[in-house]
Amino acid sequence: MLKTALIQQKYRGDKALMRASTVQKIAEAKKKRAKLIVLQELHQGPYFCQHESVDLFDLAESFEDDVAFWSGVAKENGVVLVTSLFEKRAPGLYHNTAVVFEKDGSVAGKYRKMHIPDDPGFYEKFYFTPGDLGFEPIETSVGRLGVLVCWDQWYPEAARIMALKGAQILIYPTAIGWFEGDPEEEKTRQQDAWMTVQRGHAVANGLPLVSVNRVGFEKDFSEALEGIRFWGRSFACGPQGEILAEASTDEEEILYCDIDLKRSEEVRRWWPFLRDRRIDAYEGLLKRFID
Amino acid sequence: MLKTALIQQKYRGDKALMRASTVQKIAEAKKKRAKLIVLQELHQGPYFCQHESVDLFDLAESFEDDVAFWSGVAKENGVVLVTSLFEKRAPGLYHNTAVVFEKDGSVAGKYRKMHIPDDPGFYEKFYFTPGDLGFEPIETSVGRLGVLVCWDQWYPEAARIMALKGAQILIYPTAIGWFEGDPEEEKTRQQDAWMTVQRGHAVANGLPLVSVNRVGFEKDFSEALEGIRFWGRSFACGPQGEILAEASTDEEEILYCDIDLKRSEEVRRWWPFLRDRRIDAYEGLLKRFID
Repeated sequence: MLKTALIQQKYRGDKALMRASTVQKIAEAKKKRAKLIVLQELHQGPYFCQHESVDLFDLAESFEDDVAFWSGVAKENGVVLVTSLFEKRAPGLYHNTAVVFEKDGSVAGKYRKMHIPDDPGFYEKFYFTPGDLGFEPIETSVGRLGVLVCWDQWYPEAARIMALKGAQILIYPTAIGWFEGDPEEEKTRQQDAWMTVQRGHAVANGLPLVSVNRVGFEKDFSEALEGIRFWGRSFACGPQGEILAEASTDEEEILYCDIDLKRSEEVRRWWPFLRDRRIDAYEGLLKRFID
Repeated sequence: MLKTALIQQKYRGDKALMRASTVQKIAEAKKKRAKLIVLQELHQGPYFCQHESVDLFDLAESFEDDVAFWSGVAKENGVVLVTSLFEKRAPGLYHNTAVVFEKDGSVAGKYRKMHIPDDPGFYEKFYFTPGDLGFEPIETSVGRLGVLVCWDQWYPEAARIMALKGAQILIYPTAIGWFEGDPEEEKTRQQDAWMTVQRGHAVANGLPLVSVNRVGFEKDFSEALEGIRFWGRSFACGPQGEILAEASTDEEEILYCDIDLKRSEEVRRWWPFLRDRRIDAYEGLLKRFID
């Protein structure tokens, strides 16, 4: 069993406070014997994509320092750590990047968010160049991790390619929430859709899945919109999409779950979906639309 | 609104009885003003794939008569009708084929099941040649129907290609059930997985979806296994995966729902997943596995 900790957090108003809080929670998870720790999307700061400002690229200036910092945390605690950072790659070239650290602090690998959203309040196309590393699982001492980020979670293609490349678990750091003005039933539909589509990836690929979301309200400092209430509800499910653990929608939480990476072997024997794919008839998937 | 009727049935022991029962239910649905009627997989007979017998290919001999019969039923009731038939195409060449009839009785199109399962009790690879018509939506007077069949429901690729070809609704006649010996919690996992993965297709593609399953126990006449308890629970969901209607797990039922095909336009504006697909990075989907 792979003891996994999902750290769901509120933004505390400043990077030093966020780092301190996260480090404390990682130490706590380590004490409870977690071997794999997953953080939420852009966990060091606010979800800054609520408006477009060139000044905010400053947040990526520290990327190398950030990598060194979380490397140290992974090493100190002896855990495999999935982080989500704002990567400056060159002047004018930035990515939303998940960096995965081995328990000795080395970089096991990184994943640059491939699917980039852009909606009112989520202006990510302004900040993030779409990833160019493809969908590559990251080999670690706890397994082959299919790390994807947020918007990727709506794309069956991303999960499938990770599975075809031998990922043993799908992992999504994420930042998704409601606008306060939306009616309750719309909020419910959105949250259920979010959970359902990810559980669907678990089922279709016979893989366990972990999704870690931000929680709490973050104001839009441009005041164009009110802000976003991140809906938490981080969860883990097994290879039949069955919920293993689920966090609250409004509180910080370290959510623990024991993930049995061997269960995929059984489930895929019962439901051998990979056996029957019609790869001779899937060319259309490479088209934008088939008019 | 497209008033749709999902006809979930038990097998009554003989084709004439099944036809009579189905025709009566179609007439009832017509009275309630259904415009689109969807039948379950292989609705004319038993789920005969529980064992392998060359004699059972006799069931496909009547394919042309079957098409003529359901054409008449569609015309008489003035409804668009989705049927699921055993197609004899040539001696030794058979398909599991959904034939869709226009309300004037003409054949609107057909879909030959592309993904063919084969598990103990579901020996479909013995009976059905994998379809060679690809994933093509069928144009009808009530909309462009993305008709798929049963095992296809586990494949995000099939739903996606239908969406990329302009399907306005995904439709799955199906035959899935439990073995009595399975523990209750495994049964729950299976049924939830089945519903979740399909709802996930609705979400990922921003399309409504209808799934019609058999219900009731059918003995395995070979006595190799006890038989299958088809779990019913036919359902319809909207383009956010939200359940619109859901049938029981043990009773025959005509399940009605009003489907708003225009809702996809709204949902896809909010969640423009098609906009952001990384078609430059999906080549792996055409591989069996990426070693």
